Formats: sequence, structure tokens, C-alpha cells
Amino acid sequence: MTNAALERFSINQMTVKQLSLPELVDGCLELGVRGVGLWREPVQSYGVEATAKLVRDAGLAVTTLCRGGFFTAIDPDERAAALADNRRAIDEAATLGTDTLVLVSGGLPAGSKDLHGARERIADALAELGPYAEQHGVKLAIEPLHPMYASDRCVVSTLAQALDLAERFPAHQVGVTVDTYHIWWDDTAPEQIARAGAGGRIHTFQLADWITPLPEGVLNGRGQLGDGAIDMREWKGYVEAAGYAGPIEVELFNDELWARDGREVLAETAARFVEHVIQ
Amino acid sequence: MTNAALERFSINQMTVKQLSLPELVDGCLELGVRGVGLWREPVQSYGVEATAKLVRDAGLAVTTLCRGGFFTAIDPDERAAALADNRRAIDEAATLGTDTLVLVSGGLPAGSKDLHGARERIADALAELGPYAEQHGVKLAIEPLHPMYASDRCVVSTLAQALDLAERFPAHQVGVTVDTYHIWWDDTAPEQIARAGAGGRIHTFQLADWITPLPEGVLNGRGQLGDGAIDMREWKGYVEAAGYAGPIEVELFNDELWARDGREVLAETAARFVEHVIQ
Repeated sequence: MTNAALERFSINQMTVKQLSLPELVDGCLELGVRGVGLWREPVQSYGVEATAKLVRDAGLAVTTLCRGGFFTAIDPDERAAALADNRRAIDEAATLGTDTLVLVSGGLPAGSKDLHGARERIADALAELGPYAEQHGVKLAIEPLHPMYASDRCVVSTLAQALDLAERFPAHQVGVTVDTYHIWWDDTAPEQIARAGAGGRIHTFQLADWITPLPEGVLNGRGQLGDGAIDMREWKGYVEAAGYAGPIEVELFNDELWARDGREVLAETAARFVEHVIQ
Repeated sequence: MTNAALERFSINQMTVKQLSLPELVDGCLELGVRGVGLWREPVQSYGVEATAKLVRDAGLAVTTLCRGGFFTAIDPDERAAALADNRRAIDEAATLGTDTLVLVSGGLPAGSKDLHGARERIADALAELGPYAEQHGVKLAIEPLHPMYASDRCVVSTLAQALDLAERFPAHQVGVTVDTYHIWWDDTAPEQIARAGAGGRIHTFQLADWITPLPEGVLNGRGQLGDGAIDMREWKGYVEAAGYAGPIEVELFNDELWARDGREVLAETAARFVEHVIQ
């Protein structure tokens, strides 16, 4: 089956994490979905080589691998372990045939109040990993997360901060992830998308909608496209005006979606993509 | 009792909402606290004139009244009702003897995805209310709320946005609220504080700490000073460098604090203020 409206659609594996990798691939083939964004943990469980063969045989593109990062530790052993793990993530991305590794930078170390220092340690890590990624044909995509994650997940809260980091390195080594969920509130984000595009640094574009009330811990309350406050076409317009013509991944962390039949959620997500992004 | 270390400390009523107004005033006198930030609803319940007499007789300063705002409705009747309510809030502030009314601007109307339009409607409301506030000796203090409230509470998410709005009006009519809880993640906030100070627009300075995990709905998880990720002295330094020498209010919304004895929480908050802000 082919479906022109889904040409740029990619389903991030986390959106339908209740599906096994073979179920995910079957579901994509049935709907005419051509791209998947994968996560390290389920890929490792299935086997990296086996996953690579599964998606390659199905003709699916792996649009991103999620995720590397967590660069903010101060302890030297922790830092060395994080760098080694990120090299493995780059290896896995290369094996899977994707050119993009999404990075979630990490939060404040326990007891620290030093956001600036944590951000600088990210730059130190990128300086070590950028050349290694380049050797393996993989680009690093710093993802600014919503400011509500600044202390415990990601000290990079805005596209401007992500670009300030990325621009210290060549664009084919380090760029950014543009994800509507994290930046929709930011009136400076459109100009930062233009900046990112001008530098060839939009390495992936992801969608999720903003719905309230947020759940406890604020991790798993991302909205299905069309259910929330974000105008998806507007943001697609910004990245396209900035020159981005690549895949558009839908990445939803949502307990209610995870409790449903995964094939049904996959079909719904593809339909919402057509309705709210393409048409 | 006097306490020089508490000279600039003001307790926002919401921090100890379990206390009645007379209990709050007694607690302040006992500890040597000289300022209180009040909220409209408990003041109305006790009586605005009665509250004014209570705090005046105790020699307490009312540092702010919280809160006006909610300016983003599209429906003309709703907008007229909001403006009328804000005029009453200005009257109440004048009666209470405070010169500062804190404004929480309001979220997106139901079904709307238009952040820009909502922000413009705030400017329209300020144009009507600014002169009325000035006539009553009251300054309006736009409070940017953390971006996690952008859809349902406040479309003004950064100090820069708040100042873009405020600067359309004279500083003695419209300025901003600087609250650490809402802006601590923002690396551009220090320069925006400098901008606000240069324009005479820091109308109040409030403190709360950032702790995780956030509770469901993310309203009542503000941390006691010292319990979280924010360096309070650093932010005090920014506002002082910008010329602000006024009261410093501690405003905590926290279910655990509310479940405790209010006098004990008041004493703890004053002690934390001395430990984490003054010493």
C-alpha cells in the first residue's frame, strides 16, 4: 500500500510502545507508513542487527534513533560512562541506517543549582562526540525540552540555547531537534527555526500536541495531534520556510494511548497527521 | 519584636493560606515580619475595609494584592466582565494601601490555538485599565508564568514578553512581577531584569523554589526556599543590580505546606528567607 499523504510521516516508536518491533513494522506496511523513529531500549531488546534487517527488509526508513545525551554529570566516572554510552548509541544509529541521533542533554546533578555549568559540560561532551559521530555518518540533534524539565531532564530549554551549543560545531556533526511540544509557547522559536535552517541544523522535526491538565511528573501527557493548543500547520510552515523538507515524526508519550490497541493508535495517529498537518 | 534580617521579607498570604487574616497578622507581629502580600478572595471574605484596618493597625505593609488579569477572553461580555472585575481589584488594592496589583494574564480561550491574538488582547485590556490604576495610585505588575501554564493560565511566559507588553504604557501604570519560580530556567531573564529595572518596571519581586516531581496539574508544587534548584541569592543579585530595593515576597503554593500548622510554616519560611536570601 502507498499513501502520498503519508510520504513524510514517521511514527516514533514511543507513540505505540505497546507494539513489538515486528508488529510496528507490519502496521506501517499496512498503512503505507514509510518511516519510523526508534528507541534504543526496545531495539537492544530485539537486537540491533535484527532490527536493522527487519526494517530494511520492509523498506522502512529509520528517521531517528532516540536517544543519546545525559551529559551533565560532574563525577569523572559518570561522565566517562555517559560518553561511552553515547558512542554505542552512535554505533547503533549507524547500524540501523539512520543519520540522526536525538540528544536529551540531562538535568542538574543532585544538589546543584548551576544551570550555566551544566550547559557548558554539554559542550564539552559534544566536542568529544561530534567527530566520532561524523566518522559514522551520524548527526547529533540536540533537543531542547520544555522548561518544565530543566532541573531533572534537560538543562537545554529553548531552541536558542540548543543552537548556541550546536553552532560551536560543524552542522554535519551537531544540529537540533525541533519538537512542537517543547517550543510551542516560545514566541522567539520561529526566528530560531529560521536560524537553524539557515545553518543546515534542523536535523529532525517532531510533533506532539499540548494538552492539560498535565499528569503527575509531567512526562506522559503529550496530546494526540489535534487534541490540544498547538497549530501544527503553523509550525510545519516555519520549518519548511527554513528549508526543511525531511520526515515529520510524531512522538507521543501518553498513558491513555499506551493503554489502547497499538495498531489502532498507529492508524489514528496517521489519520490525525493527514488531517492536522497535511490537508 | 523587630528583626533586621526580615526587613525586606514579605509573606504572601497564599503561602500560609490555612491561617485566617488575624492569625496571619499575629504571626507576622510575633516574628517581626513587616510585609504581607494579600489575595482578593480571603480579603473579600474578611472584608476589604476590615482587612485594611487590621493590617494598618498592626503596622504591616501590604506589598501586593494578587491578583487581577484573565484578559484573554474573546467574547465581549466576558471581556467586559473581566475589565469590571479588574477595576474592582484596583479599588481593593487602593483601599488596602498597596501600590501593586499582580496580573495573571489568562490562557487560551477554549478551542483557540492563537497565542499571538491572546497576547494582543492583554494589551487592549491594559490600555483601558492603566489610566484607571494610575488614578488610584496603583501599578499593574504583569506576571509571566512558567511556560507550562501557557495554554490554561497565562499566555505571557517570559519576562521579555511581559516587558514587550508593559513598555507600551508608562512605567507607573504597567510593569512586571519577577518571580523566580517562573523564570529561573531562562538564560535571557537576567538581561530582561536589567531591562525592567532600567525602565523602572520591577513592581514586585517574588520567590519560590523549583522542586520535582511536579504534581498533577502542576499548580501546587512550589518548593520552600532552599529545597530546590534555584539559587535565590543569584536572582536577588540580578534585581538589586537593576536597582530594585523593595520588598521580597515569598509565595509558595504547596499542598504539603498547607497541610501543616500555618504558624510553623510562617516561621520556617522566614527562617529560610534569612538562610537562603539574606545571609
